[in-house]
Amino acid sequence: MTCDFLALAVPGVQKLSPYVPGKPVDELARELNLDPAGIVKLASNENPLGPSPRVLEAIRGELAELTRYPDGSGFELKARLAERCGVTPAQITLGNGSNDILDLVARAWLAPGLNAVFSEHAFAVYPIATQAVGAEGRVVPAKDYGHDLEAMLAAINADTRVVFLANPNNPTGTWFGPDALERFLARVPERVLVVLDEAYIEYASGDDLPDGLQYLARYPNLLVSRTFSKAYGLAALRVGYALSTPEVAAVLNRVRQPFNVNSLALAAACAALEDAEYLAEGRRINDAGMAQLETGLGELGLSWIPSRGNFVAVDFGRDAAPINAALLREGVIVRPVAGYGMPTFLRVSIGLPEENACFLAALKKVLASV
Amino acid sequence: MTCDFLALAVPGVQKLSPYVPGKPVDELARELNLDPAGIVKLASNENPLGPSPRVLEAIRGELAELTRYPDGSGFELKARLAERCGVTPAQITLGNGSNDILDLVARAWLAPGLNAVFSEHAFAVYPIATQAVGAEGRVVPAKDYGHDLEAMLAAINADTRVVFLANPNNPTGTWFGPDALERFLARVPERVLVVLDEAYIEYASGDDLPDGLQYLARYPNLLVSRTFSKAYGLAALRVGYALSTPEVAAVLNRVRQPFNVNSLALAAACAALEDAEYLAEGRRINDAGMAQLETGLGELGLSWIPSRGNFVAVDFGRDAAPINAALLREGVIVRPVAGYGMPTFLRVSIGLPEENACFLAALKKVLASV
Repeated sequence: MTCDFLALAVPGVQKLSPYVPGKPVDELARELNLDPAGIVKLASNENPLGPSPRVLEAIRGELAELTRYPDGSGFELKARLAERCGVTPAQITLGNGSNDILDLVARAWLAPGLNAVFSEHAFAVYPIATQAVGAEGRVVPAKDYGHDLEAMLAAINADTRVVFLANPNNPTGTWFGPDALERFLARVPERVLVVLDEAYIEYASGDDLPDGLQYLARYPNLLVSRTFSKAYGLAALRVGYALSTPEVAAVLNRVRQPFNVNSLALAAACAALEDAEYLAEGRRINDAGMAQLETGLGELGLSWIPSRGNFVAVDFGRDAAPINAALLREGVIVRPVAGYGMPTFLRVSIGLPEENACFLAALKKVLASV
Repeated sequence: MTCDFLALAVPGVQKLSPYVPGKPVDELARELNLDPAGIVKLASNENPLGPSPRVLEAIRGELAELTRYPDGSGFELKARLAERCGVTPAQITLGNGSNDILDLVARAWLAPGLNAVFSEHAFAVYPIATQAVGAEGRVVPAKDYGHDLEAMLAAINADTRVVFLANPNNPTGTWFGPDALERFLARVPERVLVVLDEAYIEYASGDDLPDGLQYLARYPNLLVSRTFSKAYGLAALRVGYALSTPEVAAVLNRVRQPFNVNSLALAAACAALEDAEYLAEGRRINDAGMAQLETGLGELGLSWIPSRGNFVAVDFGRDAAPINAALLREGVIVRPVAGYGMPTFLRVSIGLPEENACFLAALKKVLASV
């Protein structure tokens, strides 16, 4: 008889439901015996452009140092980010993807008896990171699938230490404006850390969508989380960052594993920051792809949530699981979001024009038969 | 007046002293205005061989997928490790370096009111990971700088959930034999998870040093932690792994960030596992370098702790800090270990023959003047 190590785990971990990632191409190919080259994956909000040549050059330049540990301080990347973002390096925390940042926040400020506030339909890592440390997640009902900031303020109590906001939000694509953010920040208790997750901000610029950096100087309880996984095209490498006061960053840097970001990611992120053309082309492709998908979805009589990300949540008005299964058989991977309380939706990432067309054609075929 | 976010942090984090990594070459070059190319770094137990060509080829083959998320399940690497180690893939947990594995163990099974047992002079991440979750670290006095396994057994109490063992241990290089391990495992309570950290095992084979894998089937509370950062030469990329029962692995995989290991690390580790020549050459270089250092240290009248790792802890019999500072001015980076309770020692990693010679020459010069 062996011991039950799940029962021995800390209570938060015992109740944890792990994150369910988008299905990898190779996994679908194995399962359905398909040619990986023929599979279209629009499931993980990845950049469809492929890698930036400048990034590839930077990685190749770093390969000779593969046996050396990364620079745990991230000196060069922090210097460049600081210049770009108008902060000091001491205000930056680097993460193994921005998932790591969210996790570090939970480990630093949440524990049993404390809570974090976040919205219904918000990014799955907020509840997971909160649960893992045994804290309470206070889920605030969404308004039109977006954050109800007034209700989120009202949900804050004496035991709240963290609020997670996503702007735009994943998987809904919804967003809130500068005035709404300002009203929220002005009224949130100063002992509550506001994590503003801007993973998709590079796709989302516009006068009606605030740039979190503009609020850092005035709100010392604000932390802005960003990533190189989306618009910068480095999902494979895992690098994200937080901008905050130096005091908040100093706490996160205590909890951070000393070599949490690998060397190739550090070098690649430095190069990606300089590659304005790649970012612009990615935005152009995304805007065109969004228009293409909206047109195609409209022609199929479907509705969707207006989105400022590189993805769109499509509402089928009925259980979307059979539609997802049928799309998989057509070699098209999109993202079921039943786990986000949206069982009638599928989330579709914006791809290249031909990928979007492939998805729309498969969807048309599938809807005729499922 | 802003809020004190350190005071708001959970108690364990407030008391945390972060890990101090080996000084990077670029950092020393900046500080002392030295040419980085002339600096010898023997501070982080890195593989001096440089990258394996087969690993580089595998990385280049993966670069086209840079914009895609890693395979969060690590399917291919787990399949190869399983075959190599004689376990099933369900027994494997992949980590962002083995540091991640140690952290995951602490987060899964330790909390305030519980404790972990480890040895004096053991790897710094054991106390850090324990402290970060607010658990008690029970430090057992070392015997001749090595683990006193009998005393460690005696230190286990009703609140002990984890024991960390390192074999060989870093930074001392000490080791224990198969009989000692067997006696320990046979007597440790089955509800206590024994983490056997074998980060240096590939350098350390021999009849008097056990292979942790041989004990997995009989001791379901045993977890063996290994890394690709040392003998496999992938420190820059961050990949380690744990072998355990499927039940223990399932708990760790809940806590693990879904994409904790990056894609290039996964591909590189697969290739590294196949590169027997690289591993053999690394061992040969290490054995020769150890002999070279021991001869040189003996000629300087110094003593050291016999080591089975790729490093040796040298005892200067007086405060080693001025010697370390003088070595830095000579462009030689080794590792102070005062933080390990060994203020009279410096830890020196085994380098290439010319690096070892450079260190010995600098040390001879420094000892004549400091």
